[in-house]
Amino acid sequence: MAHALSRRDLDFLLYEWLDVESLTSRERFAEHSRETFDAVLDLTADLADKHFTPHNRKGDAEEPHMLPDGAVQTIPEVKTALAAYGESGLITGTFDEEVGGMQLPTVVARASMAWLQASNAGTSSYALLTSANAALLAEYGTPEQIETFVKPMLEGRWFGTMCLSEPQAGSSLADVTTRAEKQDDGTYRVVGSKMWISGGDQDISENIVHLVLAKTPGGEPGVKSISLMIVPKFLPNGERNDITLTGLNHKMGNRGTTNAALAIGDGTHTPGGRAGAVGYLVGEEHKGLSYMFHMMNEARIGVGFLATALGYVGYLKAVEYAADRTQGRPLGAKDPSAPPVAIIEHPDVRRMLLAQKAYVEGGLALGLYCSKLVDDQAVADDTAEAADLGLLLDVLTPIAKSWPSQWCLKANDLAIQVHGGYGYTRDYDVEQHYRDNRLNPIHEGTHGVQALDLLGRKVIMKGGKGLALLTARIAATVAAARTTGGDAAAYADQLDAAWTRVVGVTGTLWADADPVAALSNATAYLEAFGHGVVAWLWLEQYLAADGRVGDFYDGKRMATRYFFTHELPQIGPWIDLLASRDTTTLDMNPAWF
Amino acid sequence: MAHALSRRDLDFLLYEWLDVESLTSRERFAEHSRETFDAVLDLTADLADKHFTPHNRKGDAEEPHMLPDGAVQTIPEVKTALAAYGESGLITGTFDEEVGGMQLPTVVARASMAWLQASNAGTSSYALLTSANAALLAEYGTPEQIETFVKPMLEGRWFGTMCLSEPQAGSSLADVTTRAEKQDDGTYRVVGSKMWISGGDQDISENIVHLVLAKTPGGEPGVKSISLMIVPKFLPNGERNDITLTGLNHKMGNRGTTNAALAIGDGTHTPGGRAGAVGYLVGEEHKGLSYMFHMMNEARIGVGFLATALGYVGYLKAVEYAADRTQGRPLGAKDPSAPPVAIIEHPDVRRMLLAQKAYVEGGLALGLYCSKLVDDQAVADDTAEAADLGLLLDVLTPIAKSWPSQWCLKANDLAIQVHGGYGYTRDYDVEQHYRDNRLNPIHEGTHGVQALDLLGRKVIMKGGKGLALLTARIAATVAAARTTGGDAAAYADQLDAAWTRVVGVTGTLWADADPVAALSNATAYLEAFGHGVVAWLWLEQYLAADGRVGDFYDGKRMATRYFFTHELPQIGPWIDLLASRDTTTLDMNPAWF
Repeated sequence: MAHALSRRDLDFLLYEWLDVESLTSRERFAEHSRETFDAVLDLTADLADKHFTPHNRKGDAEEPHMLPDGAVQTIPEVKTALAAYGESGLITGTFDEEVGGMQLPTVVARASMAWLQASNAGTSSYALLTSANAALLAEYGTPEQIETFVKPMLEGRWFGTMCLSEPQAGSSLADVTTRAEKQDDGTYRVVGSKMWISGGDQDISENIVHLVLAKTPGGEPGVKSISLMIVPKFLPNGERNDITLTGLNHKMGNRGTTNAALAIGDGTHTPGGRAGAVGYLVGEEHKGLSYMFHMMNEARIGVGFLATALGYVGYLKAVEYAADRTQGRPLGAKDPSAPPVAIIEHPDVRRMLLAQKAYVEGGLALGLYCSKLVDDQAVADDTAEAADLGLLLDVLTPIAKSWPSQWCLKANDLAIQVHGGYGYTRDYDVEQHYRDNRLNPIHEGTHGVQALDLLGRKVIMKGGKGLALLTARIAATVAAARTTGGDAAAYADQLDAAWTRVVGVTGTLWADADPVAALSNATAYLEAFGHGVVAWLWLEQYLAADGRVGDFYDGKRMATRYFFTHELPQIGPWIDLLASRDTTTLDMNPAWF
Repeated sequence: MAHALSRRDLDFLLYEWLDVESLTSRERFAEHSRETFDAVLDLTADLADKHFTPHNRKGDAEEPHMLPDGAVQTIPEVKTALAAYGESGLITGTFDEEVGGMQLPTVVARASMAWLQASNAGTSSYALLTSANAALLAEYGTPEQIETFVKPMLEGRWFGTMCLSEPQAGSSLADVTTRAEKQDDGTYRVVGSKMWISGGDQDISENIVHLVLAKTPGGEPGVKSISLMIVPKFLPNGERNDITLTGLNHKMGNRGTTNAALAIGDGTHTPGGRAGAVGYLVGEEHKGLSYMFHMMNEARIGVGFLATALGYVGYLKAVEYAADRTQGRPLGAKDPSAPPVAIIEHPDVRRMLLAQKAYVEGGLALGLYCSKLVDDQAVADDTAEAADLGLLLDVLTPIAKSWPSQWCLKANDLAIQVHGGYGYTRDYDVEQHYRDNRLNPIHEGTHGVQALDLLGRKVIMKGGKGLALLTARIAATVAAARTTGGDAAAYADQLDAAWTRVVGVTGTLWADADPVAALSNATAYLEAFGHGVVAWLWLEQYLAADGRVGDFYDGKRMATRYFFTHELPQIGPWIDLLASRDTTTLDMNPAWF
């Protein structure tokens, strides 16, 4: 049976391309070595095989449900898996040793988490959210908050959530209506309702640490009045807090993770003898959104990894199926009585597999590249270098979230197609992978929101410095590929021309500094930009494979070729559209639909 | 609530564009008038609202299952709906009056069926399959077979299926192993197993008329030894025939229609006292596949309509949702305390709705155009004209099947995205529409099989005459649009250039008459061809709307503009790829995955 991810590919990306081992020469990672990194990946694969993969389909078929008493019932395998995960210590991966962490490079921790995500999207999400929640509090919480809330999360006993959306405010956080009011003892009382909360209630962990966006009096209108509150399900003294499950959403996929509507402070419970949920302020009032962005950015890259992981596991299953399943004869064969061939022999099946390979290995390269930037930032020699790395990561984050959500979802679609009618049945896993993955272009900022973030904010902030830094890195790869010559040089020319157009059209779109005109085709920009970035990362992989012999490296070369022949050219029409400053969507009158 | 389809759009396509009324001047349709056509559409809408739409979601949630005794249990609403459909007489739509039919034009009957398909994919499929089965038998059956089998189907009492696939032979009919042997009384005994049979067993109709592909002795190897057998579940004398349900497939979507594995002639039943299913030969031995193609071509266009219908109903719901749901503020708005706007005001939402509109109205135009060709053929003045119309239909059939299966599925994906998190829940219909529609690129010949049919057979048969006929029609539209001037003339130039490239690359691909080289990128050809055809049909609609005033016509103009600015340019890179005779997929070695 296919593994969840390819260890061979991870080894290539981590060691042969990103040279993750070199991090161990820096003080922060000095306790580590390739051996400890490998041990983490081995441990992860073992956990995945034993505890995550086996209940993946069951978690979909028997989704969590709400009992008459308002409690959630989850299949027991989820609890067992997450307990094993907690015991493994993997959840402490990137945390500092001083809070009990392994102080691993982010890139290694992400690779480990991606393996679990590929094994079981639903169950792994609890771990991902908890880790991102704990990371936020470790950064912005008081020592007491870290002691009280982060430690039990790193022990795997408590889980974390992020509570942003409300029924009337999904993407639009300015419209949050949950309110928090300061009490004499310094705590807050929080009242409101939250919606779409992943892991918002469950029967798995001892406690749930909700991070809740709420408005506090005195701020400016919109997002500048939002503060960030810790609202635990149970208070540190064990008392039940006034935050209550009002319903679970039943979804197309990703059913293993509960998705909850929560009533906060409606008096269902009365901590300290009265209604209102007790909350603890994180950092300063009215800066809540900036703290939450820390978690959101981490979650966005996590979503990109989830999308990649689901695409990846589907791809591995499609390759296995295509090599086993016989059907039909080669193109042009004359003898109908010749035995049928494995469908992997058919060019169109190979096209579908190559596309999947290009998407999922490209997505994994993208996620790991971004994760390595986090590590490079942590060990940067000076603040200017760290700031530059941060800017580069800011520019890449919407791509790291959106590109795999689009193309690794497409990979799942192609995995179904490779399986034919069988792939459409629930006897095979690929339709579930598709349904699970379909969430990813929606949550943590929809595809359209990522596009506005990229074009409306990221590529123009600091005078476009982030984009310039990215362009410089691409130029360096282009130069190296030209030196290499041959196919690499041809790809370099193609990438150079495409990226020059992407940069050029950025200026064209903002020529009038008019956000309506600039942003009306932001999604086309996002998609052109994303394919440009991934073409660059495929050329990077091609160079890392250069001169190496064997099936694995030939596969990397061929996937690069596929990306440059079949994929990168597709951005031409998108850039043409942007360059023409087309106003079709603006000119459309809603009454004409 | 949104209707299943737009009657306004149907009226435009049928009367203002295709001039379906003019068919009533021909003898075959002389009994009809716009009034009778409208009455059929009114009756259909009423049936859909009363009997098909209400159980659409229930049919998905409570899919048919097999009881311990081997019988199927379906929710009762399906039976009620199909009984009402039978009573309405709509199933007799296109059949000749002499067999009890309404002798309606195919284009009107298809429009009616599309409405039911949009209302309830699962339940409508029984009707579609029965009608296609009856049409085959009406064409190739003996008078006695028509009396015995077709009449009860047209009365809505018996249903029909088509039994092609087997566990080891999905797309590859040459590998069919079911066998039929002639008996002294002229009947046959049939033995084998069939798989993926839609409606293959159910508890809805009194009997099931299976049309079964089986090999009979004496033919050449491969498909030329296949004969076509009628294998009813119950023999005309009421005896149970030896064809037995062995399992139901449980699918991602389209759950309302059973999908069955059948054992034929395994001795579970013993008609006439012995094992073996009794079969009745249709037409001559060894010509079975050619008869079945009659049904398959009809079913392929039916699949295209199903894909369109599901895209269409999702589009209507997305428009309704986007007009109601408020969220966020206009691009560039400065005041965060201004009230939020309907999301239809956001350009990216309008883009997603315009794309859906362009896909689903384009798909409907395509299906109706092909259906009108069937009618034009039926009333053709001479056999040469009829043959030409048949060739044109042959070339368009793979597009009519594949294009909506790809792009109206994409429309369903966009309908989910417009709904955001809500669209991902099962509280809204759009995720079901997606899942239902995901079947369509797989069954009745996968996307890849359609591509081989188009490029490997349809565009080169009869010296490329079918392609030439299509090109002449496109050229006529281009000429008319140039005469119209303005935007129409610009679209004409763009279409002319694109279609010239499609035709040109057909020659390039076949330059060496080497099917391996020609067909290895057949799917890219299919997709470029399809977008070219639909661009043509959008220009046709633009011309039909020319000079007309009102929101509806402005919508048609804007969707045309969308198709020519956002969609048609995308085929450039695909044609470039084909023109380069790229061999990436051929050069990929399976060991490199």
